[in-house]
Amino acid sequence: MSGKRYKLTISYDGSTYAGWQVQPQQRTVQGELERVLAELTGEHAKVHGSGRTDRGVHAKGQVAHLDLAGRMPPAALAKGLNALLPVDIRVTAARLAAPSFHARRSAIGKEYRYFIWDADVVPPFLRLYRAHVRSRLDVAAMSRAAAGIRGRHDFAALTANPNRVVESTVRTVSMLTVRRRGSEVVITACADGFLYKMVRSIAGILIRVGEGTVPPGEIRAILRSRTRTARVPTAPPHGLFLWRVMYPHATVV
Amino acid sequence: MSGKRYKLTISYDGSTYAGWQVQPQQRTVQGELERVLAELTGEHAKVHGSGRTDRGVHAKGQVAHLDLAGRMPPAALAKGLNALLPVDIRVTAARLAAPSFHARRSAIGKEYRYFIWDADVVPPFLRLYRAHVRSRLDVAAMSRAAAGIRGRHDFAALTANPNRVVESTVRTVSMLTVRRRGSEVVITACADGFLYKMVRSIAGILIRVGEGTVPPGEIRAILRSRTRTARVPTAPPHGLFLWRVMYPHATVV
Repeated sequence: MSGKRYKLTISYDGSTYAGWQVQPQQRTVQGELERVLAELTGEHAKVHGSGRTDRGVHAKGQVAHLDLAGRMPPAALAKGLNALLPVDIRVTAARLAAPSFHARRSAIGKEYRYFIWDADVVPPFLRLYRAHVRSRLDVAAMSRAAAGIRGRHDFAALTANPNRVVESTVRTVSMLTVRRRGSEVVITACADGFLYKMVRSIAGILIRVGEGTVPPGEIRAILRSRTRTARVPTAPPHGLFLWRVMYPHATVV
Repeated sequence: MSGKRYKLTISYDGSTYAGWQVQPQQRTVQGELERVLAELTGEHAKVHGSGRTDRGVHAKGQVAHLDLAGRMPPAALAKGLNALLPVDIRVTAARLAAPSFHARRSAIGKEYRYFIWDADVVPPFLRLYRAHVRSRLDVAAMSRAAAGIRGRHDFAALTANPNRVVESTVRTVSMLTVRRRGSEVVITACADGFLYKMVRSIAGILIRVGEGTVPPGEIRAILRSRTRTARVPTAPPHGLFLWRVMYPHATVV
């Protein structure tokens, strides 16, 4: 490969997309990026994301890499893509990356944020970006429950598809906080990696704790069970943002 | 009238509406409110707004009044309307009002805010709520120009339709500030009343000042001319929010 590898940082409103990953007959974020990339460069390059996001999930800082045979300055690539992309997908940064950089395999961690609005009325301007809970959540109880999730655990009980073949369901959650700002409750989660629907499952059980229907201390028993049950709901997608993807410094030129 | 007068505070995302006022064959905010009000109460009451907002303009705190023959507690009215309204229109408060209260005639002032994003890329989540300007605005120059607009003036040069018959084009702008928060520039304007497209004209000329194409000192000459010219552009509607409507305290029961 005599061309260049690029690292893109991408922000998108997932409201009208069938998620990140290309799927037949569906409008996806990866699909839009590959379509406009071909239009801009004449090359049919694949855009490799750090991971999928589900239908309706947003991203503030998704990361992807791609290879181009032609040489285009990264700033021109970003500008050209933004000129062709729909306005609900924006390339916020573009850089040349080392040939060994891989958006998914080089990632050493991810941060997700889950946004909840717990007053009667969601402001219309936030309706697409906040999960609505009608009762005021007990953030102190949610924080106690979060402490039981932090650390290295088998998260089979907090993924949507525990029977799917994955190498391991053990992950390390390095940070999990619950904060209130007015009627907004924000769950911030950092881990070395997340299983399928893991953040929405964590948000789902924390919301139950905040509503008072699950005691905070029960979280450890749920985790230990290693079994997904109906006790753990999956919180709706539109409250979820892939916030950033972490890499070792050396991977970007 | 043996019924009751209600005061509603309403928040809406104007993106998909042909403005506030009912118009044939068009989806409007007032039209949606009157439709669901009839559905909820069986009464065909008119919803009187504090004033119109144009197509695509938002409101954080529009105010309206309406009369109902039946007696419904204000909280139940708000809840019932929100259950039937589209999610981009929310009733944020409902109160009983004095029979003499009139959303337009009782108003003693209004506050509008105009939001501008002046970096290369508008975050996708704000795209419907920020006017995009590509060059970084000189907020200090805009503030100097704003000082020339504050006070009591004939605003014929800063309204879109100066030939339209209005009693007077004199208004008192009691507050006009320009503030920056990161890549966001916010123009806040309070007045005893605003002429047609007056805030968007003020935003338009202040943006030109911020871009350096109109000197701040020229504002006074523009105002004194009392003539609308092409030198004053009308800033796009989606940056504009009707923020609140002010009333004397005694008008609400």
